[in-house]
Amino acid sequence: MSKATAIAPTNIAFIKYMGRKDEALRLPENASVSMNLSNLLTTTTVEFSQTFRKDTVTINNEEREVETVRVIKHLDRIRKLAKINDRAKVVSSNNFPTGTGLSSSSSGFAALTVAGAKAAGLDLSERELSILARQGSGSASRSIPDGFVEWVDADSSEESYAKTIFPADHWDILDVVAIVSTGRKAVKSSTAHQSVASGPYYRARIDRMAQKVQRCKKLIAAKDFPSFGALCEEEALDLHVIFMSAGIIYLTSQSLELIKLVPLWRNEGLPVYFTLNTGQDVHLLCEQQHVTAVQKKLKRLECVREVIVNEPARGARVTGEQLF
Amino acid sequence: MSKATAIAPTNIAFIKYMGRKDEALRLPENASVSMNLSNLLTTTTVEFSQTFRKDTVTINNEEREVETVRVIKHLDRIRKLAKINDRAKVVSSNNFPTGTGLSSSSSGFAALTVAGAKAAGLDLSERELSILARQGSGSASRSIPDGFVEWVDADSSEESYAKTIFPADHWDILDVVAIVSTGRKAVKSSTAHQSVASGPYYRARIDRMAQKVQRCKKLIAAKDFPSFGALCEEEALDLHVIFMSAGIIYLTSQSLELIKLVPLWRNEGLPVYFTLNTGQDVHLLCEQQHVTAVQKKLKRLECVREVIVNEPARGARVTGEQLF
Repeated sequence: MSKATAIAPTNIAFIKYMGRKDEALRLPENASVSMNLSNLLTTTTVEFSQTFRKDTVTINNEEREVETVRVIKHLDRIRKLAKINDRAKVVSSNNFPTGTGLSSSSSGFAALTVAGAKAAGLDLSERELSILARQGSGSASRSIPDGFVEWVDADSSEESYAKTIFPADHWDILDVVAIVSTGRKAVKSSTAHQSVASGPYYRARIDRMAQKVQRCKKLIAAKDFPSFGALCEEEALDLHVIFMSAGIIYLTSQSLELIKLVPLWRNEGLPVYFTLNTGQDVHLLCEQQHVTAVQKKLKRLECVREVIVNEPARGARVTGEQLF
Repeated sequence: MSKATAIAPTNIAFIKYMGRKDEALRLPENASVSMNLSNLLTTTTVEFSQTFRKDTVTINNEEREVETVRVIKHLDRIRKLAKINDRAKVVSSNNFPTGTGLSSSSSGFAALTVAGAKAAGLDLSERELSILARQGSGSASRSIPDGFVEWVDADSSEESYAKTIFPADHWDILDVVAIVSTGRKAVKSSTAHQSVASGPYYRARIDRMAQKVQRCKKLIAAKDFPSFGALCEEEALDLHVIFMSAGIIYLTSQSLELIKLVPLWRNEGLPVYFTLNTGQDVHLLCEQQHVTAVQKKLKRLECVREVIVNEPARGARVTGEQLF
């Protein structure tokens, strides 16, 4: 019997992951670039025991069937690698709303991977953990390494992993998440990833991605905030353009209201840019010295329910371990 | 000296006009299909006289420079055709808000063309009027003929005109316009037409248009409302997808709220579909027997300021004439 606890951050992608070239292995169509978020965290404890008669999965004090099926599949991957057969007890909690587009599956599967591997007695490298996490949820691969991360483009499972491109302290930028709704998404990300590929503009998007990824990495290296911010906005709109062209509208009236304000704030002299995830919440990007002004703007808006300020952060790590 | 008054409807395109293959001649990249709207009307009086020292243009009791320049250019086209040199007095009024995306330029330039041609003593065919109106504002070509209209795809000015494909009484469908804002558009249609062409997905859109136009005409012929409605929604989203991919967001939080409700209303059993113009207002399409239910839905919404119900309508016509 053994038990381990891990903590993992969600991440915000500046250049997005959308669509897969291999559905089963979750190999994305293009590389992506992200930053781990310091204050959107999942903590997960995995316990394996011969005395358990079945796997149990509790997320935020609830047992939900859809999530349970997906988590058990991931436990099976870990058991296969560790050559064990014990059932597991998984207890996980997020410090933020689940399933609303705040990327709970990225932090969730990263924490599950790290805690599960440790509890199963596996000694995996960061790269191996990233590959394993990816199979649970694509974007979880990016929550394994520290700081600013690239999930590289590759054609095989062994080559498709995320790695740190800059440490968390490379650049003092912030991701200010404006939560505009706590309702669950109407279309799950996994379904959306499948739907977009048959849309009319998806191929034209993919053709431009390698160049976008290179440009993003260069702008982070140069700490060129205005160009970086403009690229992030363009990419965020592109994500939702492709969703819309497949008939999926994640944006709500609140998120649209907010993203239309951001260019007006810039006109007033506040250097802030937006990005979006596969959901309705809006991520505002700014440099440290402007965060108070950004928060002030957000507090005046009725459509914003909650604001969470995130620094670039460490990736997933074990926080506790018990071996018996 | 001579004076004529004309009335012209705006029109709603089911298959849209976006982008031009010839900027100066306003030759569109693709054919479009529309319906004239019975209750969104412009009335325009044009008077030519040797005693006028300059052209004067009054729209809704105002003289606005931008519109005046464009109207005078159109008067010059008419004067050139009529071989006259008289200055003109133009008085025009819309029974709806101008410049908000309700297509005031379509009814405006159609009425100006018909009144102006008549006052100038020209005897033009419907086709010639449509070609002339097109040069003032592309969509105005569609407000010249009656009922359901196709603006055909062509490579020369002489061939690019709109014609009736079905009379107004062919099909009892209604266009219920939900006005969600009376603010002027941030980006004018003419500018947007130019911006989209350089966007990443514009060519892929154009490649699909001929087929869409054929399908739309077939569905109107067959009076297949659900398939027609679905095609209209797909095309409306496509229009705004292409705008968004060029960084132009016409949708407001109010219009987004409304278009996301429409599929929910269908789930409740109300056969209603949306379409959108180059602007924020939402056009709801339904058959006659469901209009009361649609109006009831709209009246409950805070975001809807005004509702205008339109039947398929006649095109532009002269309503008064004085020759001295």
